[in-house]
Amino acid sequence: MSTPTLKQAETHAYARILGIGAYRPSVVVTNDDVCQWIDSSDEWIRQRTGIVTRRRAPEDVSVLDMAEGASRDALASAGIEANQLGAVIVSTVSHPYATPSAAAALADRLGATPAPAYDISAACAGYCYGIAQGDALVRSGAADYVLVVGAEKLSDFIDNTERSISFLLGDGAGAVVIGPSETPGIGPSVWGSDGSKWNVIGMTHSLLDVRDLSDEAEHNGASNAAAVLGTEAKIWPTLRQDGQSVFRWAVWEMAKVARRALDAAGIEPEDLAAFIPHQANMRIIDEMVKQLKLPETVIVGRDIAESGNTSAASIPLATVRLLDEHPDLHGKLALQIGFGAGLVFGAQVVVLP
Amino acid sequence: MSTPTLKQAETHAYARILGIGAYRPSVVVTNDDVCQWIDSSDEWIRQRTGIVTRRRAPEDVSVLDMAEGASRDALASAGIEANQLGAVIVSTVSHPYATPSAAAALADRLGATPAPAYDISAACAGYCYGIAQGDALVRSGAADYVLVVGAEKLSDFIDNTERSISFLLGDGAGAVVIGPSETPGIGPSVWGSDGSKWNVIGMTHSLLDVRDLSDEAEHNGASNAAAVLGTEAKIWPTLRQDGQSVFRWAVWEMAKVARRALDAAGIEPEDLAAFIPHQANMRIIDEMVKQLKLPETVIVGRDIAESGNTSAASIPLATVRLLDEHPDLHGKLALQIGFGAGLVFGAQVVVLP
Ligand SMILES: CC(C)(COP(=O)(O)OP(=O)(O)OC[C@H]1O[C@@H](n2cnc3c(N)ncnc32)[C@H](O)[C@@H]1OP(=O)(O)O)[C@@H](O)C(=O)NCCC(=O)NCCS
Ligand SMILES: CC(C)(COP(=O)(O)OP(=O)(O)OC[C@H]1O[C@@H](n2cnc3c(N)ncnc32)[C@H](O)[C@@H]1OP(=O)(O)O)[C@@H](O)C(=O)NCCC(=O)NCCS
Repeated sequence: MSTPTLKQAETHAYARILGIGAYRPSVVVTNDDVCQWIDSSDEWIRQRTGIVTRRRAPEDVSVLDMAEGASRDALASAGIEANQLGAVIVSTVSHPYATPSAAAALADRLGATPAPAYDISAACAGYCYGIAQGDALVRSGAADYVLVVGAEKLSDFIDNTERSISFLLGDGAGAVVIGPSETPGIGPSVWGSDGSKWNVIGMTHSLLDVRDLSDEAEHNGASNAAAVLGTEAKIWPTLRQDGQSVFRWAVWEMAKVARRALDAAGIEPEDLAAFIPHQANMRIIDEMVKQLKLPETVIVGRDIAESGNTSAASIPLATVRLLDEHPDLHGKLALQIGFGAGLVFGAQVVVLP
Repeated sequence: MSTPTLKQAETHAYARILGIGAYRPSVVVTNDDVCQWIDSSDEWIRQRTGIVTRRRAPEDVSVLDMAEGASRDALASAGIEANQLGAVIVSTVSHPYATPSAAAALADRLGATPAPAYDISAACAGYCYGIAQGDALVRSGAADYVLVVGAEKLSDFIDNTERSISFLLGDGAGAVVIGPSETPGIGPSVWGSDGSKWNVIGMTHSLLDVRDLSDEAEHNGASNAAAVLGTEAKIWPTLRQDGQSVFRWAVWEMAKVARRALDAAGIEPEDLAAFIPHQANMRIIDEMVKQLKLPETVIVGRDIAESGNTSAASIPLATVRLLDEHPDLHGKLALQIGFGAGLVFGAQVVVLP
């Protein structure tokens, strides 16, 4: 039997971001609120992180609800119907089910069924990872329109009484629709990982410990279970980080990645209208601006002051804010870079929708 | 300021699967073993599912260990070094950490750092979803070589004493390397979701219930916590399904999807050398073969008898077995289809490595 040649999908020359949406949950948590739970101060938090308030979702608002809100805005702003979507990608680390994905439920809520739908786990680089995939799916002809969502309810996965990360984090969602374009709208993605630093941001313990400890609690009482983990430990795992290691890595390595994304796109800092980094710490943002030698004409996304670090949602949230405050940025070039737990990173130059 | 044109990555005309690897964990669980925990029989399980034994990983073998084993085989069989990888994609629903991803750790273990690395959540369609992405990444020029892994330790997420799904499931991992090709090696993916059926396979309850219940257990004792969930409920959530709904959907809808994947690739059933469906139930496999009117020359993957349902790992595991048993299949066409929790599905025709 001779092997017949497989047909291939029609490709698209270029892709771009067609529309963007945001969901900011209703609860405003101030630094003073935070200082009820940890030994810190409004002044320390402002100086060391730039955060003034962060938003959190109330109990009855889920990751999926926020994803849906941002997605509806993104579809409307792109002028695309949900049933035109050829893929739904949700980047999240806080969907509270091992399976099924948040994306399958989201596609159903939006009316995007039967679009392929999957979640990705790439933490605070998740939005840029989603853009890299959406770009590849559109250009390779696997899909015409791709919805990329970053959605996080991190408040479900923190311990308010710990000082390494809880006070930094917020909840929220951002979404974009990527589609075919007559001109290049997304530069090559410079993305990667460094799993040798897998332990510098992550969970206190494995879900398998939760299984064993809850078993222990069911059979021999809760105090026994706690004893297995250590005196102050809890059954429920929460986020922790070695802040200084992350800080140093972000400042030294991420400026280089951002620079490589400019080079890959054939762009100089002067060509940029905006720089929209992951909102992890205002000092990291300032340091990257300095190392990249960005001219003052480049407007910098600084949503962190009012939103905190919302992981996969932070770049689209910051983008929506910039576009609201500077409507002349529509259609201009922005450099975006995400980085976080893994460690992972992703950067690309995009034409703003 | 005029907007300069963004450079684009060099594309590859075609992609194909270059090599494949498998990891089968050491513990063989027989139907008689299973019948210690549930009211069933070896005869019933064989007749209704085709499963004779399933493999499970011992406590000290993790999802990551299995992923690593399969990946090393896949790299060796592809003749590709880990440092040539342009992306590492792990499809899993049983990595026991919200973050970081299994993929970042895997990339580090393999020596693939700084390759981009992310996990995807698409359950039993996860391998075919990974192939769709790997194909798009290679053809769009986002990566030269992509490692796609399906790895599951489902035994961590089941309750051996329940009768809807636990007895079907096994552990394992499979991996492939996708790379550039001079001829088309992967047909267009027919993939999708139906989130209106989100509840037919999934977890007994949310991880947020685990958080609230373990809190309750810590403060007021375990019996109180159990009372919140119901008499027999446990804190740890495990997989459940409505087997008949899944069965009907798989038999009726999935044969159509498989047929569309053939059409998209411009292929007739007679052109196929092999059919490698997700290993969910031997009766589903038989029914699909019938509805697709596959000629007897098409060799059918039936790894389920000795492996059970290993979710994202089942298709590559079945492929490795077929290639071992029928070495003449190398380079021939296979139709593969995955489907599962979401509900989600994915199918494509591939040239076997
Ligand atoms: C977390 C972070 C704000 C801490 O700031 P820092 O300047 O590195 O703080 P250090 O850990 O060096 O601690 C400096 C002092 O502040 C104190 N401190 C630490 N956390 C504190 C808090 N939340 N409130 C008040 N004081 C705090 C320390 O105890 C230490 O006190 P000492 O000098 O008396 O010993 C900072 O490291 C950071 O933002 N890292 C990157 C975080 C990040 O981006 N993570 C997510 C990536 S996606
Ligand atoms: C789970 C599955 C094997 C059950 O088989 P089934 O033929 O549909 O069984 P039913 O649920 O109709 O039950 C038929 C009888 O078997 C019994 N039964 C159900 N599970 C049983 C078990 N594990 N052992 C013994 N008897 C069982 C039922 O109680 C019922 O008994 P009754 O006739 O006396 O009432 C089958 O539905 C299946 O494979 N579904 C798809 C699963 C799948 O692919 N899931 C994953 C997708 S990724």
